[in-house]
Amino acid sequence: MTQTIEFLPDNITITVDKGENLLNAAAKAGVYVHAYCGGDGVCGKCKVVVNKGETRSDKATLKQEDWDKGYRLACLTSVESDLQVTIPEMTTKSGKALKVKPKTTRTISAKALDSLVGTWKTDPPVSKLYLELDPPTMEDNISDMQRVMRGIKLAMPGDVRETSYDHPELIKHLPLALRESDWKVTLLLLRGKNQGETFRIIDVEAGDTTSKLYGLAVDIGTTTCSGVLIDLNSGEILAEASGYNAQISYGEDVISRIIYASRPGGLQTLQGKVVETINTIIEDICRKMIISPANISYMMAAGNTVMSHLLLGLDPRYIRESPYVPSVSQFPLTPAAELGIHAHPSMRLFLYPCIASYVGGDIVAGVHACQMAKSEEISLFIDIGTNGEIVVGNKDWMVCAACSAGPAFEGGGIQYGMRASNGAIENFQIHPETFDPMIVTIGRIKPSGICGSGLISIVSELLEVGVIDQQGKFRRTIENDRIREGRDGWEYVLAWKQDSLIGEDIVITEVDLDNLMRAKGAMYAGYQTLLESVGLTFADLDRVIMAGNFGAYIDLERAITIGLLPDVDRDMFYYLGNASMLGCQISLSNVYRFRDRVQVRTLMTNMELAENPEFMQHYMASLFLPHTDMSLFPSVEKKLSEIKLSER
Amino acid sequence: MTQTIEFLPDNITITVDKGENLLNAAAKAGVYVHAYCGGDGVCGKCKVVVNKGETRSDKATLKQEDWDKGYRLACLTSVESDLQVTIPEMTTKSGKALKVKPKTTRTISAKALDSLVGTWKTDPPVSKLYLELDPPTMEDNISDMQRVMRGIKLAMPGDVRETSYDHPELIKHLPLALRESDWKVTLLLLRGKNQGETFRIIDVEAGDTTSKLYGLAVDIGTTTCSGVLIDLNSGEILAEASGYNAQISYGEDVISRIIYASRPGGLQTLQGKVVETINTIIEDICRKMIISPANISYMMAAGNTVMSHLLLGLDPRYIRESPYVPSVSQFPLTPAAELGIHAHPSMRLFLYPCIASYVGGDIVAGVHACQMAKSEEISLFIDIGTNGEIVVGNKDWMVCAACSAGPAFEGGGIQYGMRASNGAIENFQIHPETFDPMIVTIGRIKPSGICGSGLISIVSELLEVGVIDQQGKFRRTIENDRIREGRDGWEYVLAWKQDSLIGEDIVITEVDLDNLMRAKGAMYAGYQTLLESVGLTFADLDRVIMAGNFGAYIDLERAITIGLLPDVDRDMFYYLGNASMLGCQISLSNVYRFRDRVQVRTLMTNMELAENPEFMQHYMASLFLPHTDMSLFPSVEKKLSEIKLSER
Repeated sequence: MTQTIEFLPDNITITVDKGENLLNAAAKAGVYVHAYCGGDGVCGKCKVVVNKGETRSDKATLKQEDWDKGYRLACLTSVESDLQVTIPEMTTKSGKALKVKPKTTRTISAKALDSLVGTWKTDPPVSKLYLELDPPTMEDNISDMQRVMRGIKLAMPGDVRETSYDHPELIKHLPLALRESDWKVTLLLLRGKNQGETFRIIDVEAGDTTSKLYGLAVDIGTTTCSGVLIDLNSGEILAEASGYNAQISYGEDVISRIIYASRPGGLQTLQGKVVETINTIIEDICRKMIISPANISYMMAAGNTVMSHLLLGLDPRYIRESPYVPSVSQFPLTPAAELGIHAHPSMRLFLYPCIASYVGGDIVAGVHACQMAKSEEISLFIDIGTNGEIVVGNKDWMVCAACSAGPAFEGGGIQYGMRASNGAIENFQIHPETFDPMIVTIGRIKPSGICGSGLISIVSELLEVGVIDQQGKFRRTIENDRIREGRDGWEYVLAWKQDSLIGEDIVITEVDLDNLMRAKGAMYAGYQTLLESVGLTFADLDRVIMAGNFGAYIDLERAITIGLLPDVDRDMFYYLGNASMLGCQISLSNVYRFRDRVQVRTLMTNMELAENPEFMQHYMASLFLPHTDMSLFPSVEKKLSEIKLSER
Repeated sequence: MTQTIEFLPDNITITVDKGENLLNAAAKAGVYVHAYCGGDGVCGKCKVVVNKGETRSDKATLKQEDWDKGYRLACLTSVESDLQVTIPEMTTKSGKALKVKPKTTRTISAKALDSLVGTWKTDPPVSKLYLELDPPTMEDNISDMQRVMRGIKLAMPGDVRETSYDHPELIKHLPLALRESDWKVTLLLLRGKNQGETFRIIDVEAGDTTSKLYGLAVDIGTTTCSGVLIDLNSGEILAEASGYNAQISYGEDVISRIIYASRPGGLQTLQGKVVETINTIIEDICRKMIISPANISYMMAAGNTVMSHLLLGLDPRYIRESPYVPSVSQFPLTPAAELGIHAHPSMRLFLYPCIASYVGGDIVAGVHACQMAKSEEISLFIDIGTNGEIVVGNKDWMVCAACSAGPAFEGGGIQYGMRASNGAIENFQIHPETFDPMIVTIGRIKPSGICGSGLISIVSELLEVGVIDQQGKFRRTIENDRIREGRDGWEYVLAWKQDSLIGEDIVITEVDLDNLMRAKGAMYAGYQTLLESVGLTFADLDRVIMAGNFGAYIDLERAITIGLLPDVDRDMFYYLGNASMLGCQISLSNVYRFRDRVQVRTLMTNMELAENPEFMQHYMASLFLPHTDMSLFPSVEKKLSEIKLSER
């Protein structure tokens, strides 16, 4: 349920979900509210007046007389109905809200998501079949396995072209399973890769266990792994769990993992750690749902090429060395128990294929999920992270590339950078005259650092108010306490030490700005190089699809302002969430959709950017805010010139 | 090279191989030569005169004057040229050879064997392909596995529909194998089961190892296991080895093995023992050929259903219990290393499928080898042993059955029965007047017992000279030292204790005769029941094919005389040797022949005789020599009546 908030005095309106935090709502609306403490309720600066509508509010440090006058602390107030809110002069300091027209991040609506992802009925690649077999007699004493296969043919007349099995363990317990259950058994069947239909028997269970058929979709991230449990009878998502990839103590990124893997026993350790992580996710989910891990019958996973190699115990060393060659790109369907994964003992693990060393199964799964390879429309698919992955194409062709954006968006290389966890500044506005900050942190506690989305906010705000120029340098001429020459050069103070959780000033420096420009420049140069390689420009694009966790928090307008995203029609942007996980979920639920993955993998052609001269040229031209070629960013050019005009 | 021997005074001629033992030659020709000691040269009775031709002879106990007169001991004489030999009166005792026209065992000539088995060019289901791959570059950095698969396609244009691999271990060592060999590798490829062609990569070896490609055919017998090493490049048989199945210390026959398997740890023990046996065979062969077991790349084996189950570690218990159901009849292609077999680490073990609990892979392999399923002609395929297996059919249909003949032909249930090893009486003739025996033993040493072929000889001889009647009873009216009432009833003394190796009289008793009649009766009733089940009679048969080791030593004429084999045209009989092994060898050498096995398995329909009333009726009628219905044995009836006439 959504509610509308009208912010006075500037008549800025925004629609938010019921229960949204009012300070967040203001931040999203681009309404500046003085706020130092990140939303912790301690600075007491974010006082607003709710003129109309219902809220729930905590009084906290607010004086009784202010409360009685109708003041509320925006950071401790939740939106319960349509509201009219006045931002008092003391809160905006100058009595004016920002001049920038509010524009919220386009978060894809359910319908819009469906339009990309499509719908599917539940028809999973693994199924259960309950059979009541005739016991053998002297006239009919075919082998137990033949009896079972005959039963399958009879139960699915016309459907079954061939049945097989490939696991010797199966026949070891088949005879007892049949006899102890009085010849009433449930078969776990895996469908073949082709039409028409072949079934592989992967297990036999006594009695009717058809109601217990679960699948696990797993996204194996370098940092975080997540799992989603799906009831494969209904297609319903039952539970989710996630946790840090336990490999993280052996290296933050894929490169350090590869290095660790080359140490004696290192590969085994890393494999063990990710298996441990998956097992923990399984345990968490099963405890929540009160089901047995043994009822999880299929696992579909996706990860980048290094994570995929490590899970299977494959040496990733050549991924790191030029010319960057993975051992294998299509992984065999692996008995998960052999890897040490605790689920159904015969459970197979499907791992999405990789395209190249730095375009992994997570990208293939994402591209698969959004059905790019089924559409006439040309999409630009991007996943922003330490390694940005980019795919351009449609149902006839696809090119892809990875570019090493560096870890800026994950907090790396930024002096006060941090991951998107509690205390991270995730939203930021700056008062255009006082240059005072409005800080919203994750968890709404005192700030302790800056995460990726915060960084984009900060840089675009600093640029728009002219604190920094388009080269990412502070204007030395501004006189303000917050803008100063620090230990590492010029910087802007986001939070004074008394307002920070870490007891020191939190700043953003010119070095940070350089790192950010390199990161966003690499991404943009990647889009350009890929498009050029197929003779296209941004004008030919029909859609820009953002995948990955980070995409969820990107403020479109600001990301375009700094040049991270192309300056195209905002309606072309789609946000897909954890696309890798979505691909796994779809594949688990529908065998026909699952089979389509082959087309995705076959279409995608990798391009190496690392030593590509076109890429280097585009990259150099991108080290500017938003870009040296402002004709690529017409809307940003217009906005920046308007601001300059109004400042005159 | 063959030589012709003319035996005087009866003008009986026989053709034998050069080097044949003269006593053996006489026995085969049906020429009676007095001989007590089994051919050991000690009784000195088998004196003959060589009139013409060359021999090699040992003087031994022969007196100088006899030697000078031209006498030779037949048992110590080998045939070196065409001969004319006189059997002196003292040697035949009555001066007459047997009245029966000599008829040698039809041992199939090479040409005749080819006519059944056919010819094939070497085109094995496993092959090696040497590739010199282009090393990866930045422009061409597909994964190692993709590079290998592309290399296969390029090397065999048009041939390759799909390549795959299924063994995760392969990709673990692929990257290093490629790089250490400077991208020059040999692939071990397994061809798919269908035309057109799919290849499964099962290993990658550094450098060019194409010349080292060996296959092992293994016959897994309950008693004996044998292996044959084949060079899969040339199809040449390089070496053979065999040995007792080490399971034998846990039970002589399949039933006692099944019982042992049901004890705690018993199954594992038996599996371990047969694997140990196979490993010993591999070691023997590799030592002989100076090759490494790691170069044996494929193993095709066949065994009866119980042996197959035990090798794979499958519980055989339900094979023994009515209604006699095996766990599985088609076995998965198994990585042999997982069973503990020491050969190529990726070597797959193909095990011939079984039809039923007592019609195993050895029979399927045999039927496959002789191409019954490719011929219009109707064949009766028989394998005589403790369990006799019978198959009738042609390319359009096949019925099969097992009948429990009992162990008589393997020496079981016979007082002085023994396996076909040194000292076993394997050939026997009796003097029609004196009833003195002519005994030839395996190894030509003093006799210690009777093996299967000896038993058939003895019984048919005793019947022909009237020492026993058609009910298998001794004629009480004959007065002769050798025919007497012993501890267990009437018996005939084959060797007095001074002439025997074991220091006691070796006899054949009426109890023995009963057991033999049950054994041969079960086989014959089996033929009849199967033929009747498809509306045929013996007259409809085109061929009788004998498989199994025992078949090699059967004297056709005598086997028909006692009713073990049907009384049909002798030219219809073929002897296939170890047909199970032959099937494995053919499958190893030619993938197209290998694929034909599917047709064999699909055609064969099992019939249970154990509780079949028709079978029981035929069985009862068979407990006679040769049969209660003498119209089924016209040639035997004629022979027996001629002998009776001549005796008048």
